[in-house]
Amino acid sequence: MVTKTKTSPTQKPEVLQKITKFAETVVKSIEKGVFPEVAIPARTTSNIEYNPSIRQYVLGDKKILRTARNIKHLRPLAQLCWMAMFAAQLIKTRKTSTLRDAFYNALGYDVDFEDQQESDEAVTELETLLGTVREDFNIYPEERSSVFGPLVIEYNVPGYEGRRLDLTTIPDGAMIGPAMTTAKFVKSSAKQVFVVEKGAIYQRFLEENVPSKYKAIVVHTAGQAPRATRKFVRRLNTELGLPVYVFTDADPWGMHIASVIVFGSALSAHVRELNVPDAVWAGLWASDITEYKLPAMKFNEEDVRRVAELEKDPRYVTDPWKREINNFKKLQKKAELEALSRYGLEYIVTDYLPEKLAELTKR
Amino acid sequence: MVTKTKTSPTQKPEVLQKITKFAETVVKSIEKGVFPEVAIPARTTSNIEYNPSIRQYVLGDKKILRTARNIKHLRPLAQLCWMAMFAAQLIKTRKTSTLRDAFYNALGYDVDFEDQQESDEAVTELETLLGTVREDFNIYPEERSSVFGPLVIEYNVPGYEGRRLDLTTIPDGAMIGPAMTTAKFVKSSAKQVFVVEKGAIYQRFLEENVPSKYKAIVVHTAGQAPRATRKFVRRLNTELGLPVYVFTDADPWGMHIASVIVFGSALSAHVRELNVPDAVWAGLWASDITEYKLPAMKFNEEDVRRVAELEKDPRYVTDPWKREINNFKKLQKKAELEALSRYGLEYIVTDYLPEKLAELTKR
Repeated sequence: MVTKTKTSPTQKPEVLQKITKFAETVVKSIEKGVFPEVAIPARTTSNIEYNPSIRQYVLGDKKILRTARNIKHLRPLAQLCWMAMFAAQLIKTRKTSTLRDAFYNALGYDVDFEDQQESDEAVTELETLLGTVREDFNIYPEERSSVFGPLVIEYNVPGYEGRRLDLTTIPDGAMIGPAMTTAKFVKSSAKQVFVVEKGAIYQRFLEENVPSKYKAIVVHTAGQAPRATRKFVRRLNTELGLPVYVFTDADPWGMHIASVIVFGSALSAHVRELNVPDAVWAGLWASDITEYKLPAMKFNEEDVRRVAELEKDPRYVTDPWKREINNFKKLQKKAELEALSRYGLEYIVTDYLPEKLAELTKR
Repeated sequence: MVTKTKTSPTQKPEVLQKITKFAETVVKSIEKGVFPEVAIPARTTSNIEYNPSIRQYVLGDKKILRTARNIKHLRPLAQLCWMAMFAAQLIKTRKTSTLRDAFYNALGYDVDFEDQQESDEAVTELETLLGTVREDFNIYPEERSSVFGPLVIEYNVPGYEGRRLDLTTIPDGAMIGPAMTTAKFVKSSAKQVFVVEKGAIYQRFLEENVPSKYKAIVVHTAGQAPRATRKFVRRLNTELGLPVYVFTDADPWGMHIASVIVFGSALSAHVRELNVPDAVWAGLWASDITEYKLPAMKFNEEDVRRVAELEKDPRYVTDPWKREINNFKKLQKKAELEALSRYGLEYIVTDYLPEKLAELTKR
């Protein structure tokens, strides 16, 4: 099964090493006649803490021990071993898979996952053990965001090694799939990154030449940004040193899309390198609804509840988050990015964008 | 506002002519002191019929009259006029928009749409009046499917005129956005088209070199195929003369995704040229669950209800539809495309695909 061993340069070679090391401890224990065991950081709520210095959710020091000595642990330990084997195979053969595919693949090995939830859990456990995201062992989500702008990348997937793509040559934008995610950034004249939640706004930015006028790389998240996309934006920020501005709808859900990009999510506290601490939430803010006299809708019960939830979240203690939560509470209204179209399709680019950037740079 | 008038060659020039003609009748009526009026095919259920000879849902002969003489008609007629003006602007300025954007844009003109549903209705009415899909007057959906395979296209959007893209140079696949949809097909060595519902299978096909091994253009619909994607697949079929095979999950929803590609949907009975009558539903069939011993799940109540609904649908009277509905009823089980992974990730390409194609070509 294992045919090629060259891994991607952006893919950490230590991932395969870590898996191999894990496998060796298991094998050695068995050879010595000792029950194999492994300590994994606990992902229980009490062990998830918000770390203000690195501005991210992380796991605390608590660990759980999976040991074959305990008959209750045998099943999850065996599942973890199989998942590690599957991950190693993916890396070595340079293939990708999805969570769903992993679940079905296991059936062929008579590995007894009750349902997909159980196999997803094994993937998360492997992430925790290795301290790396599943994309690093080639398990990708189905969702695809897209990107356009002054950036030349060099692919690194089988059959495309060394091949380059100038992202400005694809007018619909290029998808952020496995090949894009693992590509090298070769050249860029970009000065900044605009991340937008909505497809309509992404398209508007492209049609109004925002990438060349603002020397900007524009990323479309299509709602909550998939993890591969968050990692991609982080690379734009850290490897190219570009400031990142996030544009979402003015509602609690849009605000949270921005905050997950900035601070990371509690659910992914067991992995790092998925968030962009320096990214700036640029709008739409609750205050923009008033300032730009935008057509707005009244909050429904769910919106009210969500704002109350976010108010208690440790990520929302600083501005603009805190300020805008207060504005939302006062206003009890929400608006979409497309609402700026009431002043014409181009308005968001000709007026809103430069005003917003000037305001944010001044602060 | 109107700066450029060159339209896309794949975009029917008659669309702008038809809008202009409609506008002229309205203006002439007013100048003559006569109430303007327009007759539009009725989209009521009783006027939607399945036409077996062209294998598509179409509208019957019934028409409704919108006349300014009737005070109740004034509002929808004015809305239709505004939408026609907006569409003409989009075509002339070569910009695109979404349904949502159109709704908000109207607010700037003090055009009084109660909510987006009302403005969507005006778009559908304009489609019906012009007998063309909204993509032809540049109103696009947000969703994007993607495509990969041996095909060279030539773009025709502003700034990219005459620029070509070889689809095999983008390993993640290229998005079927406005630029792809309106592009010219320049060159192709493809012998067939594979349309797949699932991202995981699309990715599998690409990684296992299905496009070169099978000389196939592979399209990912991401669930129900967006209208722009259905139109794109139709063009591959009619302009390049390629047979089309559709692969979906073995459940009533997957079967319906295939049937909408083949026969069109009742909701779009007022427009043509969105379906691919010659497309073949290639699997997963209910019978594949048994034949390939696939891990399957029991039908839930919704599945049972859906199969009963489809059984009454005039599109499902021939095989494989009728046969597979019976198989589903007998089996009361469903399976996903990824279920083939129980025999290994490559199995769908190395075994299932050639077996299926051989079977379908034999028939």
